Amino acid sequence: MTHVLDEATAVEQVSPGLFRAHTHPAYNNMVGPFGGITAATVVAALQHHPDAQGDPLSLTLNYAAPISEGEWDIAITVLRTNRTNQHFTFLISQGEGPVASGTAVFGTRRDTWGDTEITFPTVGAPDEYADQPFPDFIAWARNYETRFVEGSLALEGPQESSQSTVWLRDRPARPLDYPALASITDAFFPRVFLRRGTYLPAGTISLTTYFHASADELAAQGEDYLLGSARGARFGHGHFDQYAQVWGRNGTLLATTHQIVYYKDPKA
Amino acid sequence: MTHVLDEATAVEQVSPGLFRAHTHPAYNNMVGPFGGITAATVVAALQHHPDAQGDPLSLTLNYAAPISEGEWDIAITVLRTNRTNQHFTFLISQGEGPVASGTAVFGTRRDTWGDTEITFPTVGAPDEYADQPFPDFIAWARNYETRFVEGSLALEGPQESSQSTVWLRDRPARPLDYPALASITDAFFPRVFLRRGTYLPAGTISLTTYFHASADELAAQGEDYLLGSARGARFGHGHFDQYAQVWGRNGTLLATTHQIVYYKDPKA
Repeated sequence: MTHVLDEATAVEQVSPGLFRAHTHPAYNNMVGPFGGITAATVVAALQHHPDAQGDPLSLTLNYAAPISEGEWDIAITVLRTNRTNQHFTFLISQGEGPVASGTAVFGTRRDTWGDTEITFPTVGAPDEYADQPFPDFIAWARNYETRFVEGSLALEGPQESSQSTVWLRDRPARPLDYPALASITDAFFPRVFLRRGTYLPAGTISLTTYFHASADELAAQGEDYLLGSARGARFGHGHFDQYAQVWGRNGTLLATTHQIVYYKDPKA
Repeated sequence: MTHVLDEATAVEQVSPGLFRAHTHPAYNNMVGPFGGITAATVVAALQHHPDAQGDPLSLTLNYAAPISEGEWDIAITVLRTNRTNQHFTFLISQGEGPVASGTAVFGTRRDTWGDTEITFPTVGAPDEYADQPFPDFIAWARNYETRFVEGSLALEGPQESSQSTVWLRDRPARPLDYPALASITDAFFPRVFLRRGTYLPAGTISLTTYFHASADELAAQGEDYLLGSARGARFGHGHFDQYAQVWGRNGTLLATTHQIVYYKDPKA
């Protein structure tokens, strides 16, 4: 049986460098598809590019307009292939116009000195926290099991901190790969919801994810829970940023991610 | 008298959307120009685009190859203009080939609820710290006054933390604008130097900066010192990320920035 993430990220090369994808109703967001599934599909298309070398290292995806239900195209250009990394640009279009664009870098992992400097959050095991789904109208979130340690969407008025800490994984569980990890880096809902204690019109403008995980580290993670930690830095003038880390259960920092988000909240 | 930053970031539109820039010896790095000055020049070119609306909000710049001394071209495409933001893609080329690419978003600042959630570091006034220049062979750094609170390039063996906290500003002092701020977001040298206690071959692969500052906030900063705070999260497999904040002296968070960096450090 095909996992819903694989259905949603399926791509077909229709001409050299041009890939066709389709929106999937299971990953709908309030307006258009969940940004994470678009990111995952981009990563899948990059990996399917016949000239791709190495594994995803960096992805930036700018959401210029909502994607409508149906087909969409991603045109990938291999900008430059170096000895240990490869640079891509891509353009996502639908019908007559562009809806998103971005860049990516693939890299070859080498054996070097390494260290994770930031520390794994102090939390209990996943089963110590209830599986606390998002509200029903957020379709995409049904594809994730989310066990919040703090900062869930059970909004109880404005919070002083936008911090969320959450055990999460695909539902049903699925072995982690780069597309699935890309999707999860956008699974931290807009931090402004926590700060304002309510839903507001908000949407990601630009998402950047750095993939720290090697292919072996993804394999070691398997279907196990990931720990996500997300927080905003500054909210103002109709925009805010949020920064998140995605950890493997074994303490490996698999990805760091940041995004700038639009919100609409006229000053009271 | 023209400030050296303005000399280095001067651009001329040579055909619609195509801008010509020149490297400037004052901003040389060990190989090619300082990445920050390239970012600043991109911002300047975007601002010179006749169709640009609003102010810089987000910039991602992927460094695919070193830029050689001399002319370089930046071809800017206005991907989409929305009501409150505008999406750009750009390609930097030199001679026959591409050397860098990226995306940018400009935005219109609106009056909304706002808050800075992260806290300004606990530090003394700038004049409590010595003006501690970078080593002489790092030409670009001579254009910055750097008063390190911690984590300077006076390397004294491997450090447990890659944290730098530094008061800095253009030298000579210059009123802050978006290009100058873009440049400063890349002024935090590779964190791996601190962790390994030595210089290593290292270079930024991709830089993303979010401009939180409104034009009024930049004007309020003027020529005063900025406080920079930078740290890495994970080092491994030949790559690491670093995350930095740039604060105005008055406590305004002007920019957040992150980059993924290549390094060469065979495991001992």
